[in-house]
Amino acid sequence: MVELFEDERIDYIIKDKLKIIQSPSVFTFSLDAVLLANFVYVPIQKGKLLDLCTGTGAVPLLLTTRTKGNITGVEIQGRLVDMAKRSVTLNQLDRVHVEEMNILDFEKMNKVQYDVVTCNPPYFASKNPNDHNENKHLAIARHELFCTLEDVIRIAGKSLRQGGKAAFVHRPERLMDLLSLMRTYCLEPKRLQFVYPKKGRDANMVLVEGTKGGKPDLRLLPPVIVYNDQNHYTEEVRRLYEGH
Amino acid sequence: MVELFEDERIDYIIKDKLKIIQSPSVFTFSLDAVLLANFVYVPIQKGKLLDLCTGTGAVPLLLTTRTKGNITGVEIQGRLVDMAKRSVTLNQLDRVHVEEMNILDFEKMNKVQYDVVTCNPPYFASKNPNDHNENKHLAIARHELFCTLEDVIRIAGKSLRQGGKAAFVHRPERLMDLLSLMRTYCLEPKRLQFVYPKKGRDANMVLVEGTKGGKPDLRLLPPVIVYNDQNHYTEEVRRLYEGH
Repeated sequence: MVELFEDERIDYIIKDKLKIIQSPSVFTFSLDAVLLANFVYVPIQKGKLLDLCTGTGAVPLLLTTRTKGNITGVEIQGRLVDMAKRSVTLNQLDRVHVEEMNILDFEKMNKVQYDVVTCNPPYFASKNPNDHNENKHLAIARHELFCTLEDVIRIAGKSLRQGGKAAFVHRPERLMDLLSLMRTYCLEPKRLQFVYPKKGRDANMVLVEGTKGGKPDLRLLPPVIVYNDQNHYTEEVRRLYEGH
Repeated sequence: MVELFEDERIDYIIKDKLKIIQSPSVFTFSLDAVLLANFVYVPIQKGKLLDLCTGTGAVPLLLTTRTKGNITGVEIQGRLVDMAKRSVTLNQLDRVHVEEMNILDFEKMNKVQYDVVTCNPPYFASKNPNDHNENKHLAIARHELFCTLEDVIRIAGKSLRQGGKAAFVHRPERLMDLLSLMRTYCLEPKRLQFVYPKKGRDANMVLVEGTKGGKPDLRLLPPVIVYNDQNHYTEEVRRLYEGH
C-alpha cells in the first residue's frame, strides 16, 4: 500500500494503466513531460535510460509504456523524489529508480554510459532565488536555481555512450541556446519539432533530440498542435494521454 | 519594348500585375523566392533593400508589391542579370536595380548601409565544379560554387545598418549552420518558420530572419503547408501568388 498525503492526488493516464501521484502545491507534471516521453527515441527491449530533473518521475513512468529498459530519474527535491518513489511502487515498476541528488553531484559520481538521456529542465533563467514569489518547490522546478541549461546539456552529453540520444523540451526563446549548447557538448541535433498551442499561433514549446558524436543532418518533424478551435485537445494530443 | 529570347517565357504573378521573364534552360524562380519575399519584414514607405544571389530578380520584383523602397539585386550570372533587367523594364519599376557582380566583389566595394537584406542562396555545398552534370547556369544557382553560406551571411551582416533585418530561405539540413553563422555575424535570429510540403510530412524549407545587433528572442511562426491532400496549393500559398 502507498500512503497519500493531504495535498496529493493520483492521476490515471495511458488508458488508466499508469498512475502518477501529483500535488498541485508542490509540482504537477504537464503536457511538456508527456510530449517529451513520446518524442524521444527509445530502445524497445532493453537499455539504460536517464531522466535529469525528473520531478515526480512523470517522464520515467511514461517511458515504461514504450521500453522494457531500466530507467533512472535524478531529482534534487526530496519531496518530489518521495512522490516519484511512491508512484513507482503504486505501478509496481521496479525497473524505474529515482535518486535524490543535484545533477551536478550526479555528474561527479556517475560511471554508467546511458543509451538515452531526457530532460524537461527548469525553463527560466534566474540569478537571484529571492526574486520568486511562488513557493520554493515550484521555483526550483521552474527556474535555473540549482542547474543551468548548460549544466543539463553538458551532463546529458557526459552520461551518454557514443551514438546515444539526448532529448529535451524547452521554450522557443531558448532554442538558439539549446541548439548551440548541444553542438558544444557533441550532441548533434537530429530531430526538431515545434509545438503550437493552436492553429495560426506561434509555437510555445520545442522538442529536440541529438545524437552523441552524430553527423550534421537535421530533420524537422511535422508540427504538433495542442488545442483545436473548440479549445479541446486535438486527436493527436489526446492519443498521447491515452497511450499508443 | 522588351525582347524575349527563344527559350524564355513571361510568368504573370500577383494578380497578373507583375511579369517575370523566366527560362527553364537557365533558371526559373521557385516557391522559395515567393515565400522569402513574403516572409521578410519590409519598410512600407521607403528604405534601402538588397537581395543577394538575386537570379532573375524574382525577390526584388516581388518585394515591390510590399514596399515603396529602393531595391538592389546582385547576381554573378550575366545571362540572368539580363533577364532581370528586362523584367524590370517590362514592369516599369525603376526603383529596382540589378548589378552583375560576384557578391564577394560587392562586399569589397559596397558603401551603402541597407535596411533589409534577403538571400535565397545556392543550397548545396560543393567543392568541385566538375561534379555537376547539369548545365552551368543551374549549377551556379544551386551549388556553392562562387559563394558559401558563410559568405552570404557575412556579407548580409556587413551590408546592414544596426537594427536592420536579414532574411534567408534554406534547406532544413543547413538550419544549424544557418543559425550559428547568423550569431557569428551578429544577426540574431528573431523569426523562424518551417515550410512543410504536405500535412504530416517533415519540413523541406526554413525561413529565418535576424536583426543586426538584436537581443536574443526567437519567435517560431505558424507552419506553412504548401500542398493540400489533393496536391493543389493550399489557400495560404495560393494567396501568395495572387498577391496580398
